[in-house]
Amino acid sequence: MTRQVNYSPGLDGVIAAETKLSFLDTIHSEIVIQGYDLIRLSENNDYLDIVFLLLHERFPSSEEKRIQEQTLKDEYDVPEDILKILKLLPEKTHPMDGLRTGISALAGYDAQINDRSLTVNKKRAYTLLGKVPNIVANSYRVLNKQDVVPPKKDLSYSANFYYMITGKVPSAIEEKIFDQSLLLYSEHEMPNSTFTARVIASTQSDLYGALTGAVASLKGSLHGGANEAVMYMLLEAGSVEKFKQLLKQKLASKEKIMGFGHRVYMKKMDPRALIMKKALKQLCDSKGDDLLYKMCEAGEVVMEREKGLYPNLDYYAAPVYYMLGLPIEIYTPIFFSARTVGLCAHVVEQHANNRLFRPRVNYIGERHNPNVLSKP
Amino acid sequence: MTRQVNYSPGLDGVIAAETKLSFLDTIHSEIVIQGYDLIRLSENNDYLDIVFLLLHERFPSSEEKRIQEQTLKDEYDVPEDILKILKLLPEKTHPMDGLRTGISALAGYDAQINDRSLTVNKKRAYTLLGKVPNIVANSYRVLNKQDVVPPKKDLSYSANFYYMITGKVPSAIEEKIFDQSLLLYSEHEMPNSTFTARVIASTQSDLYGALTGAVASLKGSLHGGANEAVMYMLLEAGSVEKFKQLLKQKLASKEKIMGFGHRVYMKKMDPRALIMKKALKQLCDSKGDDLLYKMCEAGEVVMEREKGLYPNLDYYAAPVYYMLGLPIEIYTPIFFSARTVGLCAHVVEQHANNRLFRPRVNYIGERHNPNVLSKP
Repeated sequence: MTRQVNYSPGLDGVIAAETKLSFLDTIHSEIVIQGYDLIRLSENNDYLDIVFLLLHERFPSSEEKRIQEQTLKDEYDVPEDILKILKLLPEKTHPMDGLRTGISALAGYDAQINDRSLTVNKKRAYTLLGKVPNIVANSYRVLNKQDVVPPKKDLSYSANFYYMITGKVPSAIEEKIFDQSLLLYSEHEMPNSTFTARVIASTQSDLYGALTGAVASLKGSLHGGANEAVMYMLLEAGSVEKFKQLLKQKLASKEKIMGFGHRVYMKKMDPRALIMKKALKQLCDSKGDDLLYKMCEAGEVVMEREKGLYPNLDYYAAPVYYMLGLPIEIYTPIFFSARTVGLCAHVVEQHANNRLFRPRVNYIGERHNPNVLSKP
Repeated sequence: MTRQVNYSPGLDGVIAAETKLSFLDTIHSEIVIQGYDLIRLSENNDYLDIVFLLLHERFPSSEEKRIQEQTLKDEYDVPEDILKILKLLPEKTHPMDGLRTGISALAGYDAQINDRSLTVNKKRAYTLLGKVPNIVANSYRVLNKQDVVPPKKDLSYSANFYYMITGKVPSAIEEKIFDQSLLLYSEHEMPNSTFTARVIASTQSDLYGALTGAVASLKGSLHGGANEAVMYMLLEAGSVEKFKQLLKQKLASKEKIMGFGHRVYMKKMDPRALIMKKALKQLCDSKGDDLLYKMCEAGEVVMEREKGLYPNLDYYAAPVYYMLGLPIEIYTPIFFSARTVGLCAHVVEQHANNRLFRPRVNYIGERHNPNVLSKP
């Protein structure tokens, strides 16, 4: 066949879907979420406002918000057998693989599994939003031979999530910043994991399957795995000077440096990073330890000067999570949990107006069939 | 933003990857697999030839083929804890969800999980090719409260797969036809599940994750689920006349009829369907019961006359599997198992020359930010 000239590796710049959910407007530097600016939302709203907004296309009344929170609390518990399954996984299982297995296994408990209607899909979204933090926290705990921490229903959604991971009730500032990080991670147009979920859903497969695939996608070091990579890099350096050196070394040896650059933002700073930078400052001040903030700031300067690259959300979310006392291996699972609402909203939208994803290829291999004399 | 005129729903006709693995050449009516015609391969070769061809880009010598078979046999066994996990799944779990959970859990046993090199990826492909038939067969058995059937290593790869599902050693003709069906399902360019696997792998996620996502994709009724849907339709009708009526009814009520049409082949018959049609004839003759063959033939005539649609592989694979005595719920898992080699080869290829999949969207929602006066 003729080689197509319009092939764009990685579908860079290709429109893959129509959506009312979100859009990275690089011209106006706005992350549009259901018409609203994500950065403003992160200053004036909490995570559960965004959950409602993404699933209902408007903000909740205070009564609706109360009901939504109760719906979620009713879904917090995870079947005992799911925890048993997690306990059977080999000790060295990556937390994202534990999470993936847990979500996959959950499908069997859904009595309406074959129903893809809008109503049931939304109900299912709340089931998953209720249970995913529990699976994230406790799959990590179980893989690390720690006791399961059951949900504490008198805490807020985010505080309870933090509590199940750490076993500690967060302070007011910890709760606020953790909630804000979840909000910033909640939805972001069409990254690989969201695209994966929509591609899977387009076969009329269900939400569990779409989310299982999205966990697999987010695990990759070029996607969600980046926040962990940033933290290991910061810890490896350990000081401002050594961090600057490390970045320069990596640049000299043309290594990919995690936490910088983004295909869509390109030469601009990810606006979410700035919010987490402020949060990091606040946390560092409150704990009287500004090393990580100083390191990150210095790294930012090096990368801008040497490469013209700006931080993305992962660059500042990682040290924020570290200062919140969260274990590094759980950063990507937390990212996933926060993104669950965005993924669910995309699957709901895909099912409501579906077209099977089935692209073509450029074949660049041999032809041996004597009936095909030349490559057409 | 301006609505892009070049948006193609479902990426219909869009080139998503370059590949040396396979290509649907509709001009020459050839399914090209590493340069060879799949239909000829199905007449002259067996499934394990194609496994070698897809993973090594050439045919094996007889010694290489022997070694490959031994490599696979060494991988047949599945950790006891995987079987325990499958036993913990709720009874109503869909066999594809059981399979997905089993493959997902397997990741924790891979000591080289972070190594994506060509050598380790290929080794991992054989691990999965060895274990997937076992998980397919025994997740089905366990979910149906049947005893686990361990692999029988003196049988051929396909005969052992058949044996683990049914508990019976197949006859020579059953073994030949089952093997041929696996070969026909082995690889098919860029269907949704293969696309899913490549999209996931492009984040540098691993083979287990890519395959987990592919199971989720293949489960959908618009993809792998079609073979089961065909069989239920045939059984619902039960006779040639009633089947013709049923198809006409479905056409009149504009229902989607599974087993017919294919986005790429469009108005031609899927050449693989013809091979399975011959196999069905052979099986029906050998068992002295040609009802299903007669029904399928009559259905083919109705669909061509009324709709100009031709059968795809699923239409004839379904009654073949039924005549082979295989339980209907396991048709899609068998399809997945056969496709494992194609999926692995695509992930190997993606990792060897990677570009993260990250497309864009057409935003069709509201804009509420007063700073953005009009939709740009």
